[in-house]
Amino acid sequence: MARYEWISFTTDYGLSDGFVAACHGAIARTAPTVRVIDVTHAVRPGDVARGAAVLAQTAPHLPPAVHLAVVDPGVGTARRGIALRTPNGLLVGPDNGLLIWAAESLGGVAAAVELTNPRWFAPEVSRTFHGRDIFAPVAARLAAGAELADAGPAVAPSTLVRLPDPVVTVGDGWLEAEVLTVDRFGNVQLAAPGELLDALGPLLDVGGVRAVRGATFGATPVGGLVVFVDSAGRVAVAVNSGRAAVVLGVRPGDLVRVATAE
Amino acid sequence: MARYEWISFTTDYGLSDGFVAACHGAIARTAPTVRVIDVTHAVRPGDVARGAAVLAQTAPHLPPAVHLAVVDPGVGTARRGIALRTPNGLLVGPDNGLLIWAAESLGGVAAAVELTNPRWFAPEVSRTFHGRDIFAPVAARLAAGAELADAGPAVAPSTLVRLPDPVVTVGDGWLEAEVLTVDRFGNVQLAAPGELLDALGPLLDVGGVRAVRGATFGATPVGGLVVFVDSAGRVAVAVNSGRAAVVLGVRPGDLVRVATAE
Amino acid sequence: MARYEWISFTTDYGLSDGFVAACHGAIARTAPTVRVIDVTHAVRPGDVARGAAVLAQTAPHLPPAVHLAVVDPGVGTARRGIALRTPNGLLVGPDNGLLIWAAESLGGVAAAVELTNPRWFAPEVSRTFHGRDIFAPVAARLAAGAELADAGPAVAPSTLVRLPDPVVTVGDGWLEAEVLTVDRFGNVQLAAPGELLDALGPLLDVGGVRAVRGATFGATPVGGLVVFVDSAGRVAVAVNSGRAAVVLGVRPGDLVRVATAE
Repeated sequence: MARYEWISFTTDYGLSDGFVAACHGAIARTAPTVRVIDVTHAVRPGDVARGAAVLAQTAPHLPPAVHLAVVDPGVGTARRGIALRTPNGLLVGPDNGLLIWAAESLGGVAAAVELTNPRWFAPEVSRTFHGRDIFAPVAARLAAGAELADAGPAVAPSTLVRLPDPVVTVGDGWLEAEVLTVDRFGNVQLAAPGELLDALGPLLDVGGVRAVRGATFGATPVGGLVVFVDSAGRVAVAVNSGRAAVVLGVRPGDLVRVATAE
Repeated sequence: MARYEWISFTTDYGLSDGFVAACHGAIARTAPTVRVIDVTHAVRPGDVARGAAVLAQTAPHLPPAVHLAVVDPGVGTARRGIALRTPNGLLVGPDNGLLIWAAESLGGVAAAVELTNPRWFAPEVSRTFHGRDIFAPVAARLAAGAELADAGPAVAPSTLVRLPDPVVTVGDGWLEAEVLTVDRFGNVQLAAPGELLDALGPLLDVGGVRAVRGATFGATPVGGLVVFVDSAGRVAVAVNSGRAAVVLGVRPGDLVRVATAE
Repeated sequence: MARYEWISFTTDYGLSDGFVAACHGAIARTAPTVRVIDVTHAVRPGDVARGAAVLAQTAPHLPPAVHLAVVDPGVGTARRGIALRTPNGLLVGPDNGLLIWAAESLGGVAAAVELTNPRWFAPEVSRTFHGRDIFAPVAARLAAGAELADAGPAVAPSTLVRLPDPVVTVGDGWLEAEVLTVDRFGNVQLAAPGELLDALGPLLDVGGVRAVRGATFGATPVGGLVVFVDSAGRVAVAVNSGRAAVVLGVRPGDLVRVATAE
C-alpha cells in the first residue's frame, strides 16, 4: 500500500489548549517519521463549512498526504467516522461534509470506508475527543502504509454527507454568489469560479459600490474596490489598502451581486 | 543515557513575537535531529497554573520526550531552573510549580537537578529570556543524550515549589470543585476526578442550573447542560451547541457545585 | 553550492486561512527534507517594519537557514522579488525593506539578485499570492543547493529599498528613541542600543514616570517601572507584573524619552 510522508491537519481546536498537540502526539507515536503540516486550527468552533472551504483550497498545494480534518460538533453521536481515497491523497475525519470539497479538489472520491476497526484506535476512546483517539491514530496508520480496506467496511460515496453547495447564480451582465470566505486581509472570496468574470465588463458594480476588474490590489487607487480572480481561482473582491468585507458589510454565507456597471 | 527524539514546548510567549522561534533555533542548533511538538504558547502571561494544567493533561499523550515549559514571571530572580526525571520522560523549566503536575501525570519525580552548568547555556545569558538562553539549550542537551546529573546538583524533590492543589470537596450527593480550565469550546473542566460522578444521580444541579449526566454533548437538547467525564478524565460541564463557561458565568479558579437534583 | 537544512518563515498571513500551509506545501514539494521554523505569521497586515524588526531580532538565534519573509502589500505590482546572501544565511522576499535589517543582523548583504527565473516558480503564478507561487519555491530551491546567481540577475545592494531608520537621539543625560516593538508582555522595546544606558544614572525618568535601571523585571516593586537592556540588546522598559505599553501609553513608532532623574 502507498505510504505518505505527510499528514495535513485542520481543526477548530484552537491553539490555546493542548488538543492539537495531543493529536500530534498520537501521530508521532504511531508513525514517528511522518511530518505534519498544520493547515489551520482557527476554524470557528463547529463551523464545518469554513473548515471544508479552507481544506479544499489548501490541499491541492500540499505534497501527497493524508489529510486529517476534525471539525466535529457531532462527536460521540451516531455520525460516522470516514476515510476517503482520492487520486491525490487520502482524507480522514467525520462524515459531516467536512472532507468532500477537499476530496473533489483532489480528483474525487475513489473509495470510502467507515472507521470501525478498534485495533486502529487508542486503547481507550473518549466520547468527546475522537481527534486524538480515533482520527489521528487512523491517519497515522494510513500514512504508515496500512490498507484503507482494513480501517473498516466500504461506504457508498453517494451516502456521504454533503454540505449544501454555495449559491452561484448567473444572468446577463451579472452574477450573484455566496461569500465563501473572508481572509485575514478582509478580502471577500465568492463561491463563483473565476471564469464567470469573463462575461462581465471592466467596470463593475459590487452590491451598489463601483469597482474595477483588475489583476491585483493596486489596480485601483487606495480605497478603491477591485474584483479579481484570486489565488484559489475564485471571484474575489478587495479594497486597495483596505478591507473589502468592511466596505461591503458582508460575512461568509451572505450573497454578493457583481454586475457590469451601466 | 537515553536519547529523546522529541521535545514538547509550552510557554506564555504568544506567537506574535519571535520568542518561540528563537527557542526552536536554540534547540535546532544543539540537537538538530530532534523534533518539537508545540503544546501551546497561548498561556496567559505569567499564568503558571494554566500552563501546568495544560502540560499535565497533554504530556501523557505525547511520545517519550523532554518536556520544555516556560511560564516564568520570576525570570532573572532567585527562582531555580530545574530538570526532572520521571519514568516517562524529562521536564525542564523554572521551579515555580509549572512542571510538577506534569511530572506526576508521567509517573512522578524520580530525580531532580538544579540547572547550574553554564557550559550547557548560551554563550551569553540574558537576564530576561532564559527560555532561549538556558531552558531550550538544556532541553536540547538532554534530548541529545547528556546525563541529567551533568546539568547541575541534585535537588531534593520535597523542596520543589508546588502550586496549591485545586479545591475539591465531596459531600453526600454533591461535589464542589475548582474550575481548572475553560477550553476553546467554552467547556468547563473541574479539578474533580471523573470517578466522583459515580456517587451522583443522572439528573444534576450545577450551580443552580439543571443538567443531565451524559457521555457526550448531544446527551441533552440544544442549549441543555451536560455533565460528563472529559477526555482528561475530569468532571466537566458542557452546553450542547453552546458555551458552558458563559451559561455558568465561571472562569478558572472559581468554585462550581454539582449536586444530585432533588 | 551550500545547502541549508532549515528555512525560517515570517509573514502577515495569520493562521486562520490556509496561506501559511500552502507555502509549507510548496517548500515540501521542492525540498522535502528541509525543515521550517515559523518565526511569526501574526505581523499586522502590511506592517513591513514590524516584520523586519521581528525577523532581524530572531534570525541570529536560528541555525544557518534560508530566511523566507513575506509582508507584501505591493504584491503583483512592480516591486521586485529578491534574494540576498549574507555571511550567515540567505534571505528571500519582496524588495520593500522587509529583509534588510535581518541581512544586517546576519553580517550584511554580500550579494543580491532579482527573482526573475520562471523555472523556479510555480507552474502558474497568481497575481496575489507570490508567497506560495514565487518566494516559497525559490527559498526551497536555494535551501536545496541551487546557485543564487541562477535565481536572476545581480542587483546592486545600494538600490535595495530601505525603511527609514528608527529615530534615536542622544543628549546630555537623556536619550530619545522610537518604540520598535511592544511584545506580548507589554514590554516596550526602544530602537536605542543598550550601551546608551551606560551614560545615564540608576534613577530614571521615562516620559514623566519614575523608573529604575535594572537587570530584570523584579528590580522594582510590583507596578514599578524598570529600564533594562533586553534580550535583543536594546533599551527596553517593563513594569514589574504589569504592562509598560499601557503605563506609558505608547505604541510602535511613538517616541519615548529616557533621562537621568533629577
